[in-house]
Amino acid sequence: MDKLTLIKVGGKIVEEQETLSRLLVAFAAIPGRKVLVHGGGRSATAMASRLGIESRMVGGRRITDKSMLEVVTMVYGGLVNKNIVAGLQAVGVNALGMTGADMNILLSDKRPAGEVDYGYVGDVRHADGKALTGLIEMGVVPVIAPLTHDGKGSMLNTNADTMAGETAKALAPYYDVSLVYCFEKKGVLRDEKDDESVIPEIDFSLFQEYREKGIIQGGMIPKLENAFEAIRHGVCEVIITRADCIGQKDRGTRIVG
Amino acid sequence: MDKLTLIKVGGKIVEEQETLSRLLVAFAAIPGRKVLVHGGGRSATAMASRLGIESRMVGGRRITDKSMLEVVTMVYGGLVNKNIVAGLQAVGVNALGMTGADMNILLSDKRPAGEVDYGYVGDVRHADGKALTGLIEMGVVPVIAPLTHDGKGSMLNTNADTMAGETAKALAPYYDVSLVYCFEKKGVLRDEKDDESVIPEIDFSLFQEYREKGIIQGGMIPKLENAFEAIRHGVCEVIITRADCIGQKDRGTRIVG
Repeated sequence: MDKLTLIKVGGKIVEEQETLSRLLVAFAAIPGRKVLVHGGGRSATAMASRLGIESRMVGGRRITDKSMLEVVTMVYGGLVNKNIVAGLQAVGVNALGMTGADMNILLSDKRPAGEVDYGYVGDVRHADGKALTGLIEMGVVPVIAPLTHDGKGSMLNTNADTMAGETAKALAPYYDVSLVYCFEKKGVLRDEKDDESVIPEIDFSLFQEYREKGIIQGGMIPKLENAFEAIRHGVCEVIITRADCIGQKDRGTRIVG
Repeated sequence: MDKLTLIKVGGKIVEEQETLSRLLVAFAAIPGRKVLVHGGGRSATAMASRLGIESRMVGGRRITDKSMLEVVTMVYGGLVNKNIVAGLQAVGVNALGMTGADMNILLSDKRPAGEVDYGYVGDVRHADGKALTGLIEMGVVPVIAPLTHDGKGSMLNTNADTMAGETAKALAPYYDVSLVYCFEKKGVLRDEKDDESVIPEIDFSLFQEYREKGIIQGGMIPKLENAFEAIRHGVCEVIITRADCIGQKDRGTRIVG
């Protein structure tokens, strides 16, 4: 099977012109088939604030009422997405900006109100790897904003990490998928205070050992659990690294089955 | 050659839920290959106003400085476009929202500052009919927002009528293209005060005759000149009608070569 690289970058990287420019060049240099999934939370918060709409977060997730849905739809799907697409076209990447509604690539269920009512937030029900493969084989590079739809006419706000994971799993039957999560550190660190102490490779038994010893803790635990979930669903490898290290060999932490 | 219908609808139709719902149903009923080009000016003006940004128009065209470019990018490319896409998906149309930057389908030159400096406004240099054909033959229905890009990383605000015309011309080598401009009347009227006095068909000699006699005047003249321009570039027919009449036979005014 052909190799495909799926890069997920957070909002911070794509919202500042300097880091975005570096990302575009690094992304353009990745050979072969590729997909970009991006965030945009900071821009959404800033735009909401300019419109007098308060951003409410619970457990790091945004409460998305009707007016916030408008904000994230225009900011993620319009402002941030098209800025990336135009930037990639300028460096020769045939980018196509998409949300989950476009070609119905990511269909979600609106999350039922439980203890918290998140509002117009989607939990992915189906990702259409075949439709994406059709585009990718045309030489197109999908650039996916963190929005899905409910199939009934409404957009839904959706976590970008989840979208990247679901998209990678949906593409696994067609490609050898390498899923790269960019975050602020070079990789998973053995010692939180030493940025150079990157663990080069983690398999599931090493993950369990490190978790028991407390070497891996906090927010890194769900990140790695998601990574192993993707591996179990056919994704070849998950890499956790810093955005400016993408495409470089022997950088970041490689998560394998 | 296969038939393709390209519908252009103004902002007013797609910005109000009731008229949008009717349009979605009528558009879904059109058989065969199709493309939708939409406006969104009223939403852009409303959003700009909420952000404290003044909308300045010269000759019906929007002056687009950096902050207005942000507004139109997010409103046309995000809010309006994704609302249409999600709505079309809900009625079974495999819509894909696009701007000219996506897959580089419409590349523009930033309009040079003359008597008026329009700012980030694009004049279409190239429309890629082949790329669009690739999508259309996959069963995809492109939904195009009135934005292009300059190939150097910047989005550009672009007139939706122009985008529809350029897209129709670019698709003419691949399909028998029927280009439908929706506006507020049932068609070109013989008597401005009689909404039922629709002229069923106009060729170029009849257009010249009606223009001399003053039957066709004002804003309808450039509209029809654009229509004949499309016909000269291989578009089979241009229809001018009301949005709720699209897909109905013997409605509107048919412009032929």
